[in-house]
Amino acid sequence: MAAQGVTPRSEDYARWYTDVVRMADLAENAPVRGCMIIKPYGYELWEHIKSALDSRFKATGHRNAYFPLLIPMSFITKEAEHVEGFTPELAVVTHGGGKELEEPLVVRPTSETVIGHAFANWIQSYRDLPLLINQWANVVRWELRPRLFLRTTEFLWQEGHTAHATEEEALEETLRMLDVYADTAINECAIPVIKGLKSQQEKFAGAVDSYSIEGMMGNTWALQAGTSHFLGENFAKAFDIQYLDENNEQQLAWTTSWGVSTRMVGAVIMAHGDDKGLRLPPRLAPYQVVITPIFKTDEDRESVFAFAHQVAEQLTAAGVRLHVDDREGLSPGFKFNDWEMRGVPVRLEIGPRDVEGQSVMSARRDVAGKEGKAPIALDAVATRIPELLDEIQASLLQQATEFRDSNLHEASSYEEMKEQVDAGWSLIWHCGTRECEDRIKEETKASSRCYPLDLNEEWSPEGKTCDVCGQQAFGRAYFSRAY
Amino acid sequence: MAAQGVTPRSEDYARWYTDVVRMADLAENAPVRGCMIIKPYGYELWEHIKSALDSRFKATGHRNAYFPLLIPMSFITKEAEHVEGFTPELAVVTHGGGKELEEPLVVRPTSETVIGHAFANWIQSYRDLPLLINQWANVVRWELRPRLFLRTTEFLWQEGHTAHATEEEALEETLRMLDVYADTAINECAIPVIKGLKSQQEKFAGAVDSYSIEGMMGNTWALQAGTSHFLGENFAKAFDIQYLDENNEQQLAWTTSWGVSTRMVGAVIMAHGDDKGLRLPPRLAPYQVVITPIFKTDEDRESVFAFAHQVAEQLTAAGVRLHVDDREGLSPGFKFNDWEMRGVPVRLEIGPRDVEGQSVMSARRDVAGKEGKAPIALDAVATRIPELLDEIQASLLQQATEFRDSNLHEASSYEEMKEQVDAGWSLIWHCGTRECEDRIKEETKASSRCYPLDLNEEWSPEGKTCDVCGQQAFGRAYFSRAY
Repeated sequence: MAAQGVTPRSEDYARWYTDVVRMADLAENAPVRGCMIIKPYGYELWEHIKSALDSRFKATGHRNAYFPLLIPMSFITKEAEHVEGFTPELAVVTHGGGKELEEPLVVRPTSETVIGHAFANWIQSYRDLPLLINQWANVVRWELRPRLFLRTTEFLWQEGHTAHATEEEALEETLRMLDVYADTAINECAIPVIKGLKSQQEKFAGAVDSYSIEGMMGNTWALQAGTSHFLGENFAKAFDIQYLDENNEQQLAWTTSWGVSTRMVGAVIMAHGDDKGLRLPPRLAPYQVVITPIFKTDEDRESVFAFAHQVAEQLTAAGVRLHVDDREGLSPGFKFNDWEMRGVPVRLEIGPRDVEGQSVMSARRDVAGKEGKAPIALDAVATRIPELLDEIQASLLQQATEFRDSNLHEASSYEEMKEQVDAGWSLIWHCGTRECEDRIKEETKASSRCYPLDLNEEWSPEGKTCDVCGQQAFGRAYFSRAY
Repeated sequence: MAAQGVTPRSEDYARWYTDVVRMADLAENAPVRGCMIIKPYGYELWEHIKSALDSRFKATGHRNAYFPLLIPMSFITKEAEHVEGFTPELAVVTHGGGKELEEPLVVRPTSETVIGHAFANWIQSYRDLPLLINQWANVVRWELRPRLFLRTTEFLWQEGHTAHATEEEALEETLRMLDVYADTAINECAIPVIKGLKSQQEKFAGAVDSYSIEGMMGNTWALQAGTSHFLGENFAKAFDIQYLDENNEQQLAWTTSWGVSTRMVGAVIMAHGDDKGLRLPPRLAPYQVVITPIFKTDEDRESVFAFAHQVAEQLTAAGVRLHVDDREGLSPGFKFNDWEMRGVPVRLEIGPRDVEGQSVMSARRDVAGKEGKAPIALDAVATRIPELLDEIQASLLQQATEFRDSNLHEASSYEEMKEQVDAGWSLIWHCGTRECEDRIKEETKASSRCYPLDLNEEWSPEGKTCDVCGQQAFGRAYFSRAY
């Protein structure tokens, strides 16, 4: 049974999503169309994703910096594909300090241009390479069909930008960061993403090649949850990023960029949520445990709260993020539903009988009903709860993996593929041309998601033809409906 | 002797500042005039200030959220003083997604308006209060005389926004956050700030009262390092922030806002820097310790590096942030100067003789020459270095406090004050009127910094008159040159 106020997923998945975002208090629309307000519960989720990524970036030698929000319009036009891709999405500042500006400024849609300009100054010799920078920032891309977290005119993200002496090193970096993204998605967000190469149609405007991690949402649609771009020498040429090599000769640098945004919050909602609301992976949950005291008399109230705080203290000392729900005037049932909606992994109930028995009743969000309940003795709480949280983290990943695997299909003809993309992803041999992708999109609404790295040992293998148009195949690609 | 490339402070303090920011690799000008690029070393300094503030905000019950960058122009005009104060500084977006917008959008200069609008929706009853929110964000205020970190068109900051049921609670919050700022400035940044009330002329546009922490820089000028505003019912009226009280009657809420920005990085540079460069408080330093291996032969190189990594391992395990300077082709002397410029609190030198003696030579940044040097045995490193860092932290605070105290003066006449503000702060009885402040500024270039809270027991005490104009005094205020 769906929670009150939530449209069941089977009835209307898009409305289910909107209902859950609202009822779990994650975000809301801002006064300016397309922008969003991220509410504290949603922001804390993002903070945990952020810190999981940030520590991985630092462990792989990257350092944070900050580049300006406002970019001269002339910068955007320096890389031909880049300007074509981003021009329709730009927000433009024409007035500043009470005057019309001589040159309009662009609110950054991404920072390759302004960072490329800085890199050209920073890099003189091979000793300055590799240059490994990340920035946490907001960006603005005008969005005609906004959806909270998934597509918003302003969003928060990180964008990594690196420069290298050789093509090989830049390619290595591109794939290293793709691995960092996959590791974060799988082990923090419990989303079993697939790593792959994007088609030329779907790549970043200005990149030679783009790679992505693709996750499967609860309606089987795909969501691109992070991208890593091999930019070749494109931006180095446009912004004159050169270095003196060991033989004292000028060389162009090779650059990469890679990003993950608040979109990942949308992925977490849709990969795990059910008709009762969110189900949060413990590693990301703002509250991993919520304690609900249950009592009728004032006398019970006192002993129940005293015991609840004893439990809370032990768990806090064990590093568990928890909350004691001491709201007045709300029934335990209301509170249970509320925390279920907000996806809290473990609920602890404490009533007078629990105080007497010096134990608490635990209930898992990922296992409904009696099966998910178990009493835990007070003196076991500090060891058992962290274990339980690990079990829930693993269980969410397992459920998502089973769901994904049961909806991954292989097709050997266009006809077969058409059926498969109605409810799942279809793996086909594909030519990789825009024309063929456009045709598929028009006829099936499915788009090329990626050429999975582990299913493609070589590109354009001899004797393999596109399952749709019959031309030479580029590789095996997943097609599906996508966000 | 000043470091090479750095103007001595006594010669030209403004140039000294610019030189140090450049040579310590903290920040540089962005392509758009007035904006800055914060380089990794400067950004890491900011990250430590950020995390010191963030943990204090959370400990006092505040939660982070995120509100949009773009604000409808009509919002800014809703609070009369606010619009007057901010209009000359606005950056305006007139085009988005390839079209001219129906209503221009303002790039937020601060977020009282858009957050006030959200609070009006979020707050229904007294049960929703207090509402305690903080946001980490970038803001844009057009700046005609930009200086890196001190005044930039775009800067990074946090802005707290809270709503309360009563005037008393809102005032308490305003002063609580002022205390949090003072605690952070004193105990993390080692800057002995003075807490006080701003004059009506210097307060935030839209506030009833503004409070600030004021620090003394190395040239005796003041720098306002953080502000906390009691907004009364001003924004509640403008944005209709009302709640139903316990008697079911509609009441206006009382709000506050408070902010600290990347300006604080400028304060740290100027409060502690000397002619050799930065001197960083250990609690903020990106690297608390830098190890410089010294060797001549390849054989020595190997044993010195092996020992350096042994020391590094022990210190990292003890929670010390450190860096081993293994750059090739640079002399130890060059490296010493470089890390001195960058203000690293402790330098460890390791040469063949140190390896033999199983000890390292430590050198303090805050104590020059032999006096600041001491050998530390390998087996004492993990306990001695953290102690030494605490000593340096305390020493920087003490030096800054002594410097401040020797430049705080009391005047009993305008003539006396005029002399004092040439090189220091002057405490006078002041009327608090704009006219009198304007006159002082024109004649002495000094502005009203604040009415220190601990030197003013009551406002407008009977029988006290302004030392400048002779009218009834409002209280005792510091005047000085300021950033």
